Amino acid sequence: MTINVGLIGYGYWGPNLARNIQATDGLRLAAIADCDPSSQERAAAAWPQTQILSGANELIEGRGVDAIVIASPVHRHAEHALAALRSGRHVLVEKPMVTKSEDALLLIEEADKRQLTLMVDHTFVYHGAIRKIRQLLDQDHLGKLLYYDSVRINLGLFQSDVDVLWDLAAHDISIMSYLIGKSPSTVSCIGQRHFENTPTNMAYLTMLFEDGLIAHTHVNWLSPVKLRRTLIGGDRRMVIYDDLDPDEKVKIYDRGVSIQTAPRLPTEKKVDYRTGDIAIPALDRTEALTRVVSHFRDCIRSGCKPETGGPEGLEVVRILETAQQSLTRQGQSVPLLG
Amino acid sequence: MTINVGLIGYGYWGPNLARNIQATDGLRLAAIADCDPSSQERAAAAWPQTQILSGANELIEGRGVDAIVIASPVHRHAEHALAALRSGRHVLVEKPMVTKSEDALLLIEEADKRQLTLMVDHTFVYHGAIRKIRQLLDQDHLGKLLYYDSVRINLGLFQSDVDVLWDLAAHDISIMSYLIGKSPSTVSCIGQRHFENTPTNMAYLTMLFEDGLIAHTHVNWLSPVKLRRTLIGGDRRMVIYDDLDPDEKVKIYDRGVSIQTAPRLPTEKKVDYRTGDIAIPALDRTEALTRVVSHFRDCIRSGCKPETGGPEGLEVVRILETAQQSLTRQGQSVPLLG
Amino acid sequence: MTINVGLIGYGYWGPNLARNIQATDGLRLAAIADCDPSSQERAAAAWPQTQILSGANELIEGRGVDAIVIASPVHRHAEHALAALRSGRHVLVEKPMVTKSEDALLLIEEADKRQLTLMVDHTFVYHGAIRKIRQLLDQDHLGKLLYYDSVRINLGLFQSDVDVLWDLAAHDISIMSYLIGKSPSTVSCIGQRHFENTPTNMAYLTMLFEDGLIAHTHVNWLSPVKLRRTLIGGDRRMVIYDDLDPDEKVKIYDRGVSIQTAPRLPTEKKVDYRTGDIAIPALDRTEALTRVVSHFRDCIRSGCKPETGGPEGLEVVRILETAQQSLTRQGQSVPLLG
Amino acid sequence: MTINVGLIGYGYWGPNLARNIQATDGLRLAAIADCDPSSQERAAAAWPQTQILSGANELIEGRGVDAIVIASPVHRHAEHALAALRSGRHVLVEKPMVTKSEDALLLIEEADKRQLTLMVDHTFVYHGAIRKIRQLLDQDHLGKLLYYDSVRINLGLFQSDVDVLWDLAAHDISIMSYLIGKSPSTVSCIGQRHFENTPTNMAYLTMLFEDGLIAHTHVNWLSPVKLRRTLIGGDRRMVIYDDLDPDEKVKIYDRGVSIQTAPRLPTEKKVDYRTGDIAIPALDRTEALTRVVSHFRDCIRSGCKPETGGPEGLEVVRILETAQQSLTRQGQSVPLLG
Repeated sequence: MTINVGLIGYGYWGPNLARNIQATDGLRLAAIADCDPSSQERAAAAWPQTQILSGANELIEGRGVDAIVIASPVHRHAEHALAALRSGRHVLVEKPMVTKSEDALLLIEEADKRQLTLMVDHTFVYHGAIRKIRQLLDQDHLGKLLYYDSVRINLGLFQSDVDVLWDLAAHDISIMSYLIGKSPSTVSCIGQRHFENTPTNMAYLTMLFEDGLIAHTHVNWLSPVKLRRTLIGGDRRMVIYDDLDPDEKVKIYDRGVSIQTAPRLPTEKKVDYRTGDIAIPALDRTEALTRVVSHFRDCIRSGCKPETGGPEGLEVVRILETAQQSLTRQGQSVPLLG
Repeated sequence: MTINVGLIGYGYWGPNLARNIQATDGLRLAAIADCDPSSQERAAAAWPQTQILSGANELIEGRGVDAIVIASPVHRHAEHALAALRSGRHVLVEKPMVTKSEDALLLIEEADKRQLTLMVDHTFVYHGAIRKIRQLLDQDHLGKLLYYDSVRINLGLFQSDVDVLWDLAAHDISIMSYLIGKSPSTVSCIGQRHFENTPTNMAYLTMLFEDGLIAHTHVNWLSPVKLRRTLIGGDRRMVIYDDLDPDEKVKIYDRGVSIQTAPRLPTEKKVDYRTGDIAIPALDRTEALTRVVSHFRDCIRSGCKPETGGPEGLEVVRILETAQQSLTRQGQSVPLLG
Repeated sequence: MTINVGLIGYGYWGPNLARNIQATDGLRLAAIADCDPSSQERAAAAWPQTQILSGANELIEGRGVDAIVIASPVHRHAEHALAALRSGRHVLVEKPMVTKSEDALLLIEEADKRQLTLMVDHTFVYHGAIRKIRQLLDQDHLGKLLYYDSVRINLGLFQSDVDVLWDLAAHDISIMSYLIGKSPSTVSCIGQRHFENTPTNMAYLTMLFEDGLIAHTHVNWLSPVKLRRTLIGGDRRMVIYDDLDPDEKVKIYDRGVSIQTAPRLPTEKKVDYRTGDIAIPALDRTEALTRVVSHFRDCIRSGCKPETGGPEGLEVVRILETAQQSLTRQGQSVPLLG
Repeated sequence: MTINVGLIGYGYWGPNLARNIQATDGLRLAAIADCDPSSQERAAAAWPQTQILSGANELIEGRGVDAIVIASPVHRHAEHALAALRSGRHVLVEKPMVTKSEDALLLIEEADKRQLTLMVDHTFVYHGAIRKIRQLLDQDHLGKLLYYDSVRINLGLFQSDVDVLWDLAAHDISIMSYLIGKSPSTVSCIGQRHFENTPTNMAYLTMLFEDGLIAHTHVNWLSPVKLRRTLIGGDRRMVIYDDLDPDEKVKIYDRGVSIQTAPRLPTEKKVDYRTGDIAIPALDRTEALTRVVSHFRDCIRSGCKPETGGPEGLEVVRILETAQQSLTRQGQSVPLLG
């Protein structure tokens, strides 16, 4: 049975969602709502057979859709998602899920109560590169994780409703959270707003975990070059994930050190270095958003929990909230509350 | 008149210093002291005409040298440099100058009192790339500085007497300090010691300046790849300095944003982006250490203050000390005391 | 007045042409013809307001189009273009224009006689990078040209109707021809067909010019990596054009040698090397095909000759024909007949 | 028993040979001969315990050396090597071995008659990267070889006594010859001499083999950038060897095509593409010249033939001679005589 999907928001990301919804077996792009007339026009030209509406409420209150995909501005996510769930629709919401963790909890509760699918579009989690790294971790290929270091910088679009953390670090936190599978105990964040009346445009975010793992993200809208690079250091192998490399996104290094815990002689070298082969695995090149949308369909059909559902969305929001607190205290370490 | 130079320490860096001392007009490598017999042997084989001594004291207490270059382990710097100054010798000491700022003050005072040259080997400050960037700043080519971000990571030599901050970040702080020419107001540092009985092996250091400039350094002995990259963001132009690029070490980007402070219409775009040319200047390729050693000679001769003298060495030590304090408080921001 | 455009061929390149025709002011995509039913379907879905036809003849013999764009298989170009011109339509034909120079001459003559626009889609000629390099040459920025060396290799689509020369080298020859502005005197080509019943899949093409300029192209469908790189050596400056570099496509090197023609002393060094700055100019990022299509429109309107008209298409075909002759004689140098 | 070695020529490469001779167990650097007084001075300063002579004859006619290493200008190789062999000394001669194949034959005959070691310093053959690639070939890891393509270009030292072929292509031919293990049937070469009274400064060399393998080398002294890259295409796997990459010199690509020889249906796709993993093996990082020198010692001791002995040196000379002939005939294909 075909699932009729309504899309709220046809700005930057909406067209990609629309294209993937329409291309997914079992889904039909039934309606698109956007309050901006020029977006409505673009939507109408591209999707002649889809109903174009001028507001989210119209879509939510109307009939004819079974599921709603929310790509409205971030500060409207909570309101739109809650209304959609309350009207009995399954929901796929853009990242970041909401701006306050209490809103995330509300959505999770509502979805659970009504047995509806609530999914967050943490797109990168569905990317072939991230899947491959997760597989390496699941097979204990990297050993114990020591650090996670990511850089996501470019001469970027200054957003008006979110700062660089909620815009860019949201990606890194969702990826890290999926790969590491546990929560940090503390969060520190230092950043800067370089221009009046604009949001924080660069930030350094550090997370400490109980077992000694340290995670760090540099996000920046003011870099002259675009970088999307993550280093993952395990005590057995290390990985570099460079999202901009067309051919070599994931490199696995058989490199590291061995520490001799009890050298027999005081003059003995305590640290041994290992420099072995590098492997660059072929990756599944399916567009990540295609997988997001088909996973959403599968969850609706099966009733199973999405891989990036409410709790995963909440985790990202909690870390961002805590980072924001730390930012206002000049980087003081803030415990992540459970 | 030839200046006779004694060298204390013939380990990793000592041979480079010896080679440059001997190759500099007006200097003569008169003596080398090292307590390790195998180092003595290496020194004797390489410098058949130089006196080889088995200890620093022997060199300092002996005669025949006018200046002393100190490349002993970091925790001996203060002792060796103070004795050398008290014995009336000019001193060039490896970075980091000393491990405590009170020792740095003592050395500065002693050198001033005796009108001796006290210089610190902040090698990178004498590198063609750094000179070029400083020239760009002096000519106000980059505009107001917004951020300074450096990464200095590799699968590195775990040092036994210093941690990764005193080993690697000392370079970044000395470069930054030379380029920026003012002190940060606060310092934060988070890091990790991943193995027992070894020093902190990775750290993130953030410095805030009064005018909104933010500086950050990532140093790491556990990276699978070697990176030496610095981004310098000005509001007029930006620079990337990649020390490992054989051909394109300094790139100057005519890129950035212009913020409209008072848009006439609410719908007006507030941020304009600029993506202009990139320039890669040819650099002076003189070996940096060659310049260090000849600058030391010139200062001895002229009595002028070195570009990286006692005060500059002290500045690096003060920032490292403050970073160390922040590190023990999980990254809490610590004011840099004057 | 709107020009109604018909498109023949909706395979790989056709959709890009369709999109650009439709997006160009003054042009209307009136009809698309393709004999393959699945291509017809794709065209119908994408262009609901365009007439979809099952054959080129239907389009040419029908009414309602003023200009015809030909993206049919290469061996049909001559037939389709000639019929289109004879029916009084302006023609834009994909590269390579035709497979025999006599056909090119026929088309040129027909277009001239009827005062119709005949243009060849040498897309790269309209690319911002190539325009910039041409400008450098026009301003004598590079000095006298010494060599032109291009590499265009990848794990490529084995074409069934053309070999690697007519597929890939056609690009290099059209670019070179536009930049250099004169014809080679001789052409040599060595290549290999590695698999039975498939065309030549790699080739090395060398062209000599009367003034000492040497041009060389390596084209290959069997490379493990994709490279699109051209070196242009002038005696004043040199250029590297790397089409795959997202940010640094054109690099201008102030490098070269100066030869002392009459050294005063026999021991004097005869060659001086110059290693100056590198400049990376910002480029016009307009899609090249957008410019192709709007230039076609402008030529139709004004009656002016296109920058890549019949004679430019013929030049590429003549060089390819000569290369083919050389290829069958194991690389023997063949004069390019005028 | 220690082998006393005499070195003829202390110019660019001589110091590297001297250092490796002296550092090799069982060898002693007994004498260095160079007719240039400044080279003699440099040699005397660096090797205080070695006899410094002002001419090759003095060394050859004198006593006290058992083996002679020849790094004199290329056109003197034959004369020096022949005299050395006739005086009963083992010989290691720089590449290219000699300038005429008849001289190579003479040397081979002389060494055979006297049962002396005659070795050519094809340094790259002893490089960890080339050894690794040879191992891949020996294990049939790459399948049937289809092509060999190398680029060796830079803003290079214009040599006075050899052209770019004998200077640079000698390396590529020696590597190719070692890896492929068979002779080409024909050789073509096109090049250019851009300045009067200087040798050919760029050339394209193509070699065809009986089984369809095609090899090509681009050598150039006038490139703005330095490239040292070789592609080796097998029908099972492909290799890229980039000598300038500090960390990833050899990359093995599991990529290629499969041609269906008899498609069942005419519409069936005839070519299948394979894009699998990339592997970057860790390499033995021993300096290649260290291996050259110790292999020379081993051959002297054991009487075994060197891996790069007279016949291997001759092969390179024969190909270069044939290339030179082709060069004078504008690239006409010339059979390689056996």
